[in-house]
Amino acid sequence: MIRINENYTRLKPSYLFSEIANRVAQYQSENPGADIIRLGIGDVTKSLPPACINAFHKGVDELSCDSTFKGYGPENGYAFLREKIAGEDFHKRGAPIDADEIFISDGAKCDTGNFQELFANDITIALPDPVYPVYLDTNIMAGRAGNAKNGRYENIVYLDGTMENGFIPQLPSQPVDLIYLCFPNNPTGAVITKSRLQEWVAFAKEQKALILFDAAYEAFITDETLPHSIFEIDGARQVAVEFRSYSKTAGFTGTRCAYTVVPKECVAYTESKSEILLHPFWKRRQSTKFNGVSYPVQKAAEAVYSDAGKEQVKKRINEYLLNARIICDAMDDLQFSYVGGKNSPYIWVHGKGSDSWDFFDRLLTKAQIVCTPGLGFGQCGEGYIRLSAFNSLENVQTAMDRMKKVLA
Amino acid sequence: MIRINENYTRLKPSYLFSEIANRVAQYQSENPGADIIRLGIGDVTKSLPPACINAFHKGVDELSCDSTFKGYGPENGYAFLREKIAGEDFHKRGAPIDADEIFISDGAKCDTGNFQELFANDITIALPDPVYPVYLDTNIMAGRAGNAKNGRYENIVYLDGTMENGFIPQLPSQPVDLIYLCFPNNPTGAVITKSRLQEWVAFAKEQKALILFDAAYEAFITDETLPHSIFEIDGARQVAVEFRSYSKTAGFTGTRCAYTVVPKECVAYTESKSEILLHPFWKRRQSTKFNGVSYPVQKAAEAVYSDAGKEQVKKRINEYLLNARIICDAMDDLQFSYVGGKNSPYIWVHGKGSDSWDFFDRLLTKAQIVCTPGLGFGQCGEGYIRLSAFNSLENVQTAMDRMKKVLA
Repeated sequence: MIRINENYTRLKPSYLFSEIANRVAQYQSENPGADIIRLGIGDVTKSLPPACINAFHKGVDELSCDSTFKGYGPENGYAFLREKIAGEDFHKRGAPIDADEIFISDGAKCDTGNFQELFANDITIALPDPVYPVYLDTNIMAGRAGNAKNGRYENIVYLDGTMENGFIPQLPSQPVDLIYLCFPNNPTGAVITKSRLQEWVAFAKEQKALILFDAAYEAFITDETLPHSIFEIDGARQVAVEFRSYSKTAGFTGTRCAYTVVPKECVAYTESKSEILLHPFWKRRQSTKFNGVSYPVQKAAEAVYSDAGKEQVKKRINEYLLNARIICDAMDDLQFSYVGGKNSPYIWVHGKGSDSWDFFDRLLTKAQIVCTPGLGFGQCGEGYIRLSAFNSLENVQTAMDRMKKVLA
Repeated sequence: MIRINENYTRLKPSYLFSEIANRVAQYQSENPGADIIRLGIGDVTKSLPPACINAFHKGVDELSCDSTFKGYGPENGYAFLREKIAGEDFHKRGAPIDADEIFISDGAKCDTGNFQELFANDITIALPDPVYPVYLDTNIMAGRAGNAKNGRYENIVYLDGTMENGFIPQLPSQPVDLIYLCFPNNPTGAVITKSRLQEWVAFAKEQKALILFDAAYEAFITDETLPHSIFEIDGARQVAVEFRSYSKTAGFTGTRCAYTVVPKECVAYTESKSEILLHPFWKRRQSTKFNGVSYPVQKAAEAVYSDAGKEQVKKRINEYLLNARIICDAMDDLQFSYVGGKNSPYIWVHGKGSDSWDFFDRLLTKAQIVCTPGLGFGQCGEGYIRLSAFNSLENVQTAMDRMKKVLA
């Protein structure tokens, strides 16, 4: 008898974005003329940079004749892309990462979801709250979360984010093994300083823990003093793995390219406490369960690092950051408390006592704006919403004008 | 302390194709002038069909302006592609599969590797031998295989393929829960008839087992009486999941697109023997750990079903099948026993008593031909090699001329 993985039955039944989609669809069907503006799901809206489009076309052309055709590529990605990444994303910031420590993939969601497979099933997970739901859900599927009680899973060590700590959680007071961190944060837009990140690295060393650092939004950092990578911190190479993506950087959400950095010194341990290097483990995982990223897509990603590509990416990021500033200004006018929006496309807004879904419904029905209810990212998200800067300037301005009218 | 998944340490250390690459590289460095012909790894060599190239370019163009830009697509794939698949690959062959039972992915390797996640860790796996190594390796990683003893894993029920049974294994004589089948087979090229496949479906029903049916090579079937899909068999919708790929069909090995079919009636069971539908489980797995296939790639895959696309795909398949016939003719001349090569790009050749790696080394050093040693696909592969038709006509002819000279 083929038995299911019963851990799946512990997942909460509805995924956040489906519930949002249902409520929006219902409102739209009851109000067919409503001009709904979406500041909800974190999807980009601007075209791929022209430099990426050109390189993408050239890559496709190479597939059109036998002599330049590309079949299976290296599972870990082409060297032309990995070398650019090492140089531009790491060496230029003083982070000591080599090309063969980089694994190209089709998405940071896949990599952050899959990486936990490398670890024992009874390790203790430390998880920020609120945070991107994939970290929790993939650990529930693997059986590490235990049962849900009052909205929380019994075996997870939650790292609470609050307005008081600026949504930068404190170090846990109990032993943990695998720590998820995400900065600039999804959903709060909070950022971490080098000295605070240094504390986490020191804590991981002391605990023999591992940090999975999700830096998918690093391109939005404008404050020169903030770290873009955990590998800008001394000692991180032994205790951290980092996830990056072209999705938000260069608009690759529908094109699909990302990468994961596993330094060659990074270790985990056997039951008998021997050190094991993680790099060959992830390499084996990827070469067994993955077959590389589409060749023309890797060519398009390489173009992000060309002079034209860098300029075009910067222009798009600045446009989104201008939207974020307009949203922050509106929140200031309306006297809503918030974090984020400075080095991030997300603004995390406190609902002045409304619960998340009430605030969501109010924005939808009064202002025809879709946001993301904070509760969808964890219990500490209750009472908050996430607004996203991923839209056109005009739509963001219209949305903020509406909010000022109905919420003032 | 972050502890590793020790099941990974049970994997055999070297992956088949790396060992082949090492031996070839060493030979090439010792014989820099050698003109090596690769009939080893199953990678296509011919360009993408022009219809796919055109659609690919158009898809890229849509990403170049905001008004036609595509961000995140449906995790399960765009309806335009799923509907074509349902109509062309299934309805036209009388197989009752709907568009919403199809999940588009970036590779059949990923899907055949990931699907086991949906099941309990202590189920019994039935695995053909020889077969594509991903099925075994992903179950070793999940802890289902147990320890290796004399080249076999203690908890796996092996389904032996031999020249006597034509590499179509018998039904197992003991209870099993999850059964992997692959037809046309990789590596042997053996095919299964409807009546033999009907026996497997009946067996799975009786056992409440599930069949994972890998049909990545179905496009090579020329015998009209053979099933292309397990869903051509009555009753399969309850007990089978099928994996398909554009890799070998249309040359997408470097472009990356595949799909998995999970019928809505397909069931597994809880510990307490309640039926659970698998479709929502796989949907949840994919929407949590996957983010869809690149939009232009899905447009390229859709073009496989256009009139021009079908003709261009057929031309390429026929060219590879002509190569396969030339290889079969050479094996006949040399009086080697073999299976495959008729409805498959692979020819599985018995080494007349040489072991697999000796036969590999002999072909490499005497004829400068790279094959795949059969032992790499399981213990029953010892004494065999796999020859692949994925090369140019000229190279295949040259390779066979050399073999006739050195092996006659």
